[in-house]
Parts: sequence; structure tokens; C-alpha cells
Amino acid sequence: MSDPSPESALPVGKWHFELVTTDLMAVYRIRDIVHTGTTQYQTVEILDTHSFGLSLVLDGKTQSTELDEHIYHESLVHPALLFSPRAESVFIGGGGEGATLREVLRYDSVKRVVMLDLDEGVVELCRTHLPGHHDGGFDDGRLELRHEDARQYLATCQESFDVIILDLVDPIEGGPSYMLYTREFYQIAKSKLNPGGILVTQAGPAGFLNYTECLTAIARTISETFPETYPYATYIPAFTTLWGYVLALNEGGPGTDGVRLAEIEPGVVDGLISKRLPRELRYYDGISHRRMFSLPKYLRQGIGAEERIVTDENPVFMV
Amino acid sequence: MSDPSPESALPVGKWHFELVTTDLMAVYRIRDIVHTGTTQYQTVEILDTHSFGLSLVLDGKTQSTELDEHIYHESLVHPALLFSPRAESVFIGGGGEGATLREVLRYDSVKRVVMLDLDEGVVELCRTHLPGHHDGGFDDGRLELRHEDARQYLATCQESFDVIILDLVDPIEGGPSYMLYTREFYQIAKSKLNPGGILVTQAGPAGFLNYTECLTAIARTISETFPETYPYATYIPAFTTLWGYVLALNEGGPGTDGVRLAEIEPGVVDGLISKRLPRELRYYDGISHRRMFSLPKYLRQGIGAEERIVTDENPVFMV
Amino acid sequence: MSDPSPESALPVGKWHFELVTTDLMAVYRIRDIVHTGTTQYQTVEILDTHSFGLSLVLDGKTQSTELDEHIYHESLVHPALLFSPRAESVFIGGGGEGATLREVLRYDSVKRVVMLDLDEGVVELCRTHLPGHHDGGFDDGRLELRHEDARQYLATCQESFDVIILDLVDPIEGGPSYMLYTREFYQIAKSKLNPGGILVTQAGPAGFLNYTECLTAIARTISETFPETYPYATYIPAFTTLWGYVLALNEGGPGTDGVRLAEIEPGVVDGLISKRLPRELRYYDGISHRRMFSLPKYLRQGIGAEERIVTDENPVFMV
Amino acid sequence: MSDPSPESALPVGKWHFELVTTDLMAVYRIRDIVHTGTTQYQTVEILDTHSFGLSLVLDGKTQSTELDEHIYHESLVHPALLFSPRAESVFIGGGGEGATLREVLRYDSVKRVVMLDLDEGVVELCRTHLPGHHDGGFDDGRLELRHEDARQYLATCQESFDVIILDLVDPIEGGPSYMLYTREFYQIAKSKLNPGGILVTQAGPAGFLNYTECLTAIARTISETFPETYPYATYIPAFTTLWGYVLALNEGGPGTDGVRLAEIEPGVVDGLISKRLPRELRYYDGISHRRMFSLPKYLRQGIGAEERIVTDENPVFMV
Repeated sequence: MSDPSPESALPVGKWHFELVTTDLMAVYRIRDIVHTGTTQYQTVEILDTHSFGLSLVLDGKTQSTELDEHIYHESLVHPALLFSPRAESVFIGGGGEGATLREVLRYDSVKRVVMLDLDEGVVELCRTHLPGHHDGGFDDGRLELRHEDARQYLATCQESFDVIILDLVDPIEGGPSYMLYTREFYQIAKSKLNPGGILVTQAGPAGFLNYTECLTAIARTISETFPETYPYATYIPAFTTLWGYVLALNEGGPGTDGVRLAEIEPGVVDGLISKRLPRELRYYDGISHRRMFSLPKYLRQGIGAEERIVTDENPVFMV
Repeated sequence: MSDPSPESALPVGKWHFELVTTDLMAVYRIRDIVHTGTTQYQTVEILDTHSFGLSLVLDGKTQSTELDEHIYHESLVHPALLFSPRAESVFIGGGGEGATLREVLRYDSVKRVVMLDLDEGVVELCRTHLPGHHDGGFDDGRLELRHEDARQYLATCQESFDVIILDLVDPIEGGPSYMLYTREFYQIAKSKLNPGGILVTQAGPAGFLNYTECLTAIARTISETFPETYPYATYIPAFTTLWGYVLALNEGGPGTDGVRLAEIEPGVVDGLISKRLPRELRYYDGISHRRMFSLPKYLRQGIGAEERIVTDENPVFMV
Repeated sequence: MSDPSPESALPVGKWHFELVTTDLMAVYRIRDIVHTGTTQYQTVEILDTHSFGLSLVLDGKTQSTELDEHIYHESLVHPALLFSPRAESVFIGGGGEGATLREVLRYDSVKRVVMLDLDEGVVELCRTHLPGHHDGGFDDGRLELRHEDARQYLATCQESFDVIILDLVDPIEGGPSYMLYTREFYQIAKSKLNPGGILVTQAGPAGFLNYTECLTAIARTISETFPETYPYATYIPAFTTLWGYVLALNEGGPGTDGVRLAEIEPGVVDGLISKRLPRELRYYDGISHRRMFSLPKYLRQGIGAEERIVTDENPVFMV
Repeated sequence: MSDPSPESALPVGKWHFELVTTDLMAVYRIRDIVHTGTTQYQTVEILDTHSFGLSLVLDGKTQSTELDEHIYHESLVHPALLFSPRAESVFIGGGGEGATLREVLRYDSVKRVVMLDLDEGVVELCRTHLPGHHDGGFDDGRLELRHEDARQYLATCQESFDVIILDLVDPIEGGPSYMLYTREFYQIAKSKLNPGGILVTQAGPAGFLNYTECLTAIARTISETFPETYPYATYIPAFTTLWGYVLALNEGGPGTDGVRLAEIEPGVVDGLISKRLPRELRYYDGISHRRMFSLPKYLRQGIGAEERIVTDENPVFMV
């Protein structure tokens, strides 16, 4: 027998190709193309996929999908909000599909959200085509939605926030976001955080294949600016990889009673959830928190060994 | 501008296609095909890939790769070996590439390893083409290597083991392994475990997309047979998904001093590693252990809600 | 240098996969999905592609595209119509997108067209989404459009035709058309052809890779029933292969003055075009005719050596 | 029913991707990789494919395959050799796999062949791995094989030839061949042709999708230099497209008795074949000749309308 490939297993149909790295693709079967077009800033596709339901794709990269966006967004939002002592005012940079906003608005403590997404076109498309992502959040009276550059706005605004959430597209050369991953930007953001405030940012892939692409550099850079920094990681199926985040605590807050966030007992997290939120979450709870904040050895080593500090002059880019 | 797809980004070259689910493919760029052929039991390809180096593919599914097999194999072997009170005799079912064997042989405490891989052809190919995987383990005097059916052998052998490791191909309909994932088989295996002995098995994908395919059923089935059962999960890049394992403790051992394996302090694990192993491991340590054993909420819920018990009459299959 | 594949050339975006054979795919970049759904008989996709513009895909196979359907349809229709002595009444089997109809209606001599396409759903979709294909033909007063089985209709209808055009989907096992490629069907069709009438059918791929799949058998079968048979072939870009047709002349007509169709001088064809048609065609003229009817040596040999006669009991299928 | 794509038809295995245009790929299943590497000039892959057998791929583009290279090479060589009045001395530019040489050496009239292929590495690999392509031709005493630039050599050599065959890789920007498709080069070549000599070159894709990429410009350019020029086209399965050639006659020969090559009766060609060659050819005969030289209408129109003349200063490139 000369050929190990089963003749009966053959490819047909419509598929979306996406590069995970230059040598590895994730390929999704497409049921339909709900929208395809170009805004002022980027190409936008909303695909109906078999595996993930509706999927938002910006400049060819999957941003969030109906099936698993709750894993990404709960992981991004809740550690910051739950461990913020007040959690009254929240700044969101990016997050155009509205799901970060939706998670933030679950907190009754939150009185004001300023959300800046540069690309009004994307926000409008998500509002129309991805209702589950925002769940009406765009109509919430606590929201001030602006379509401006987040860095410029933060640098000049007159208020400060309890929580700053950076739900940005990856730092791509020539893209709209790479100046929101630099030391200079984090210093600006810190200056608009209240005492004890928390900043959290998505930080790129965390898998063994490509965790040094930007995650370790972002973690190192933030740790230069903030007194306490926590990289953490969650597996996101639609990204086919472990995904990284970095959370940082500002000085001056009550802190976490001397317990580092990575060591918090699951029961403490679960207690905060039942006190601060009207109901349980789908992905995030005490044990999920412990998983997220207990990094694989290679990530801890990689962050420890990282020497790059991302600056305006030496930004970091993803492939 | 009519087209959001960048014209300059075009696909060329040689790629290996692999189904993660029926609607999702992982596609790897191939540098070379080191071997392609068919043994008595299955097709075997050894590919040289850009992302993962040498990769062993059986019946079209990636089994382990040079880049990240240490993550898979350390996760499979070390929790069982470290928490085995004696760890003298070890049974390995499957594991043809020799990497499970390599990890087991790191322990000086291990005096005897019986390894059964049905497919002598695969073992020979791995011995030749994947030297890093076995690292000479096939020549270790402690090894008895046999090419027989693991279930038949266990049922009739006269000895018992401290640790049984099941490093099997996924349960595929008509494939060689699905009868090694049933309650009847686990009862046979338990009968050949020493008091306090440990059984561990790979248990299929654990990502949100397909964790109910077989992982939850295997976990439930094993928990019917053993007094203490621990499902755990690690992200394996070459599988593009979180991967599941199930570890079970037999009655009669010293146990873990009343501390459940999932709650063990990282320092305890690290202490065992320095006591029992000649040097640190690459992936597995105390904090990686905590990550692996702290399951995402959906997995805990899914395992809790699972009602399927896998039996010889009602086996479970992966797609 | 270890890798010959240029790193900069990478695949992204949305693509339609189509099997040319089981080991060869044509893959088209998709701009948008205009329609995707299922009628009573088959799946229908209308894709907007970069290479071919709008493309009609039935059961996963490209049927005709905006860019090059004129090549396919002119090749199918005009040899039959031009060499029909009267060309007043025309029967079309299949042809749901309306382009065969459009070509037929170019002839003022045509007084009546009976078109049977089983699948009303496809016809409606093409009418809506592919206006260039039918160009208003569905509203022409000469047309009687029916959604019934063509074989059943021909067997029982009371009229006969000058030209019968079979623009059918390929004969697929279990598909709607394979009983329209058998000797019994051709005998029925012949019985409804006027003296000197012409039958023409599409007949599957004609490239060196797969011309024996069905083309040679169809040609042989038709030659058993008709006194004069002409296989011919045209390259259709969207099919990525040479495509076969078979034309047959009924007894009793003036014929072609003893000149076989394959030997006709280009000037004769061009003269007929200027006499019978209001204007030139895009693809078909005297020299294109000579190309189409001058078959490559392997096709002539393959047809000569073919022994299969397609019957109701032994139908022919494409993969 | 929500999805028209049959769930059972799924892609697996190893495939070679190749761009036909930037929006269209041909994808071949690979059985094995016989060779992959890089010479001084280009990357070379010899793939064992299911559809085409052994396939030579240079810089990612299929050059010729075991299954159908006879179609390409017979089409390239025999019109030129058969209509050359003497056919004693032949110059081959390129043609590293040796199949053009093999076809030339079929003629007993041929006394001397000078073959220049820049890339000795490719020639050696083909000699070793593609024995059917050259069939021993490299050992023929009539051959002088050199590894130098064909233009430089022709410009300075002291002899002239009856036939010049240009079997070059496509003109790619930065590639080794684009200066062998310019007016200046054709003038050099003409100066080394004997009276009545013939030059023939491969000339890129001729399908409706991309015939203007370079074929029309090459045809126009050659017609500026030679008194009689014949573009012709053959469908090559492994290229998934119609392929173009241009043949040109030098002044001073007996010519073809006033009959243009495109109008020659099949019987005349067949007569020459039996007179000049020891046995029939596989693809090329009188009727295949008529097919090749009877161009589709769009090609004749495209060549007629072409205004580009390819010069050293304004070369033509394929994508």
C-alpha cells in the first residue's frame, strides 16, 4: 500500500485561512459571510462559522467569536474589576465589539464607563451584527463612547479612573494600536489611574510556540512602571492558542492584604463574585482564576529573562 | 477598495492538513517528509515541520513533535510518578515514540518498566528517526519492551505495578485503542496496581470546543472504578488545543496526607522533584502542576454533569 | 539555507475549495457569499470570487462563472444551432442559470424553446443573483419553462425539436442527472428530434488527467444511437480543465454537404454566424470551432478504445 | 438544513499549494518529498504526487510532471523540428530536466545539440531523480551541455543553429530568465539562426484568466523581429491552464510552400512525422497540431491588440 492518506477524506467547501504563525494556519469552515468591507482603519469581516458561530475578523485576524468570546472577555475584565477596591469608573481602550463593555456593566458599582474605540465603523457593524457580544451595553446610560485615539485622550483628559482596560488589536507594524503598548503609554495610563487602581491589557499569544513574540516584552515593560504586575494566560479556542494578559496594580490602594493575586484562595475569588456581581460567570471563578494566574514554567522563565522594554522608539510588533 | 484580503499575502509551499474537528483544521508548513509508510496497524508519517521540528503523525493525526513533546510527556508522566509512594515498577501502554519511557527512566527509584506498544513498526521508526524522543531509553536494562495488546497482557500477567501509564492513540472507531478506554479495562488495570498505585491516561481534547467528545466520559468512567480521580489539562501547541489527562489513585496507599492532588502547594511538588529527580524538568514544576490541576470552570461542570460510562458495549469514539 | 519556501508568501483570507479529482483541488479566493442554502434537490452557493466574479456552485461544484461562462455556453450552444438546418424549436434540459437559454434566444430563427430544469429553486436564485447569465431570457415569450424531470417529459411529450441541448449537472451517484446520460435516454431524445436535428450534451472533463472518467463513455454511447457523432473540447478556466461535449446529428437532414463538422473551413462557420446571428460571438468563431473539434490525440485514441456503453443498468458516475 | 457542505468530505494529509494567479491556487496531494533544497539559483523540490507522479518544482512553481510532461515538451519541440528544413543543429536554452533534449534527440537528422542551463544543480537533480524525463539524453554524444547564461553565450558564440528552443522558467522579477524574453535577446537569437531556421519559446499561460500577463506581449515582441510568427497553445493539466508558445521562422528558408503553419493539413504533419521520426509521438500529430495552432478567439484578439514590446528596459514579468 503506497499511500497513507485516506482517499475518502477530501476537502471541499468554504474555509477561512488564518495565520497563527508564518508556518501554521488555523482554517475554519465558513457557513456564510455576514459582512465584508473596509472601514477607515481596517478590513472587517463578520463570518458565520461552523465551529465558532459568528466571528469578528479584523485585518484577517479573528478577534472574538460567539462560541468562546466569554472566555476571552471574562478573563480580561473580571480580575481587574473584582480586585479594584471601588470599581466605579472604568476606561476601556478598544473593545469595539462591546463585550468588554458588557462585562464591565455587570457591576452595579460601576457608575461611569469611558470607552474609546478609534473605529466607529467597526462599532456600528458589531452593534448591528453581533448583538450577543454587547447585549445592549451600547445603550447603557453609564457609557460615554468616543471614537478617538485612546492615548491622546488619556494624555489630555481631566479625570482619572479606577480601572483601565486595554482591549486592543495586536501591535502590528503600521497598525492602529502599537503605540498603546509602550512604556510611555503605560506611564500616561498610570497617571490617570486612581490610587490602588488597576490596569489590564491583552498581551498576545502565550503558547510555547510564540510567547516571546510580544507577551514577555509587554509584561517586562509594564513591570517597569507599576509596583505590582501579574501576567496571566487563558486558552482561547478560536485563537488556537493560550492567550496572554497583563494586570498591574497602582500604588496607594488597600492592595490585596499582602496576598499576591496569583496566590489568592479560590474561595476568596468566589466570595467576591457573589458579593459584587448579580450572578455567577460562565468561565471565571476561583479555580479558573488560579489556573489563569499559575503560569506554565516556560512563561515564568521567559518573563524573568526578558530584557526588552517596549518604548515609542523601540515598539514591539507581532508578525 | 473592494477587497479586504491583502493581495500580497499568498499561500505557497507544502503543508500538512489536520482536522481538529470536522470544521476546523490545523495546517502546518512542511520542510521535508522524513518517512511515509504503513505498518501492520496504521499509517506513519514523520514530517519535518517549520513550527514544530520533527513530527510523528499516525493515521493522519499528530502524536508528538520535537518542539513541544516535553510538555505533553512531562504532564503525563510526572504527576503519577512523583505521587507514587514507591515508583519502582511501571507499566506503559502505548507510547511508541519512547518519550514516556524517557521520562519514566529519569527516576532512579524505577527498577522495572514493562512497555507494550502493539505496533513494532512504529517503535522501530521512532527509534531511528526520533532519537530525541527516546534519548536511548530503548536500550535501558530496566525496560522490557513487548509488542502485544496491552489489555490482554495486563489481564493475564502475573505481576502488579506501582504506576500504570496509558499513552495511547485516541479512541477511534475501528482503531487499535478504543478497548483501552472502557470500564472493563480500567478494572483490569486496577487489579494489577499495587496498593496506593497510580494509573494515568491521556484522555483527549479539553478545549471548550470539544471537551465533551471523550474527556468527560473517560473521567466519569475512571471515577467509577477508583476512589480518587483527578482530571487535568495542559495546552499542547502542536495539538492547537488544551489536552486532557485523567489520573487515579488506588486504595491502600499512604495517599497524599489528606491533601487532594489538586490543592497541593507548589513548594511540595518542587520539593518532590528535587528529592526524586536528578534535575529540574522543563515544563512541569509546582506552579505548572497547580495550573494543570486547576481546571477551567466548564471542564469541572462538564465532568460533573457527565452521565456516560464507557463500557466494552458502549465505547466512546473521537471523530 | 534550510527552507525553500519564501517566508513572505503566506495564505490568509477566505477561500473556496473544490476537488478536481480526489488528489487535486482548485482553491478560489472568495470576496463574498451572495447566497448559500439548500433547495429541494441540492445545495446552492453563489460566491463572489476575485478571479471569476459571481460563481454558481451546486453541491460543491462550480457550474458557471461571470468571467468565463460565455466560453462554456457558446461552446455548448452554437455548433448545434448553427448546423441545425432550421433551428426553430429547441429543447433545453437543465441549464438553470439561463445562459444556455440566452445563447439560444440570440437566433431569430428560434420560435420556441422548452426548457426543463428540475430545480425551481436554483432557477429563481439565478434569476435574482445572476442577471448577466440569463440577460432577461426568462421573460422571453418564446420560452416555456418547466420544473420537471427532462427524461419523463421527453418520453411523453407530443412534439419534436430541431435541437436538443443537455446542459446538465455531472452524473453523480445519487444525483439528479445520471439517468440523462444513458443509451435509453439518448434513444428517447433521438425519437423527439426532427429529421436532421441535432443533440448536444456537456460530457465532463476532457483533460489528460481524467478524460476517461465519463467523456469517452458518453461519446461511445451516443455514437451507438446516432449516425454521426462529434466529441469536442474547450478549456474552461473556472473548471481548471479542458471540458468535453458531444454533438450528434440525426438522420434525414441535409447534413453538412458531406463535410464532417470537424473539417469545416473556418470561413464557413464565420459565414453562418454572420448570416444567422445579429452579431459576432465572444468566444466562438470559425477558428475556435476548428480548435474545439480538433481533439488532442489522447482523446481521439481514448474514444476509439472505449468499450463502455452507458445504460440504465450500468450508468456512469463522476467522482 | 443549515449547511450545504457535506460533513463527511474533509481534508487531511499533505498537499502542495501553488498559485495560478494571486486569487487561485492549485493544490496537489503529495505522496512523498523526493528532494527539497536550494541550488545556487533557486529552490528545487521534487515531489511525488498522487495526480501527476514525480513533479519538478522550481521556486514554488511546477515545471513538469511525469504524467503530462510529454504534452508540454512534444508541443514545444516538434513543430519547430518538423518544420525546420534541415534540423541538424539545435540550441536549447534552459530545459534542465532533459525532456526537451530527449524530444530533440529523437531526430536522426540532429547532429549537434548545444544545451545551456544556468543551474547545474537542477540538471544533476533531474538526472538522478527524473530518469524518465531525460531518458539517457544527457549521455548522448551529440550533446554539448553547458552551465552558463544563454544570452551571453548566444551573443558571442561562433556558430549558428537550425533550431533554437527556449525552454525557460517564467520571467519573474529578480529571477534568472526575464532577460531572455526581450526584443534585444530575440535579435541576438535571430542572428544565430541559419536561413529558414526556427525559434520557439514557451510563453506563459494562455487561459482566459491570464493570457495578457505575458503571452500576448511576447508574441508581439517576437513578431517585431521575425518575418513569420505563430503563437500556439496547449492545455497542460499540471499547470491547470492552457499554455502558450511562440514559434518564429527566420528569413531565407524554403518556408512552408506558402502555407501558413496554422493552416497545414493534418496529413502533412503526419507525413512529416513518419518520414522524420522513428515512431509516432504520444501527444503531437496532425490533428493535435491543428488544435494547437487554431487559437481561441480571445487569444487572437488579444495578440492583435497588444501594444507592449518587451525590451531590456521594459521587461515583462509574471506574478
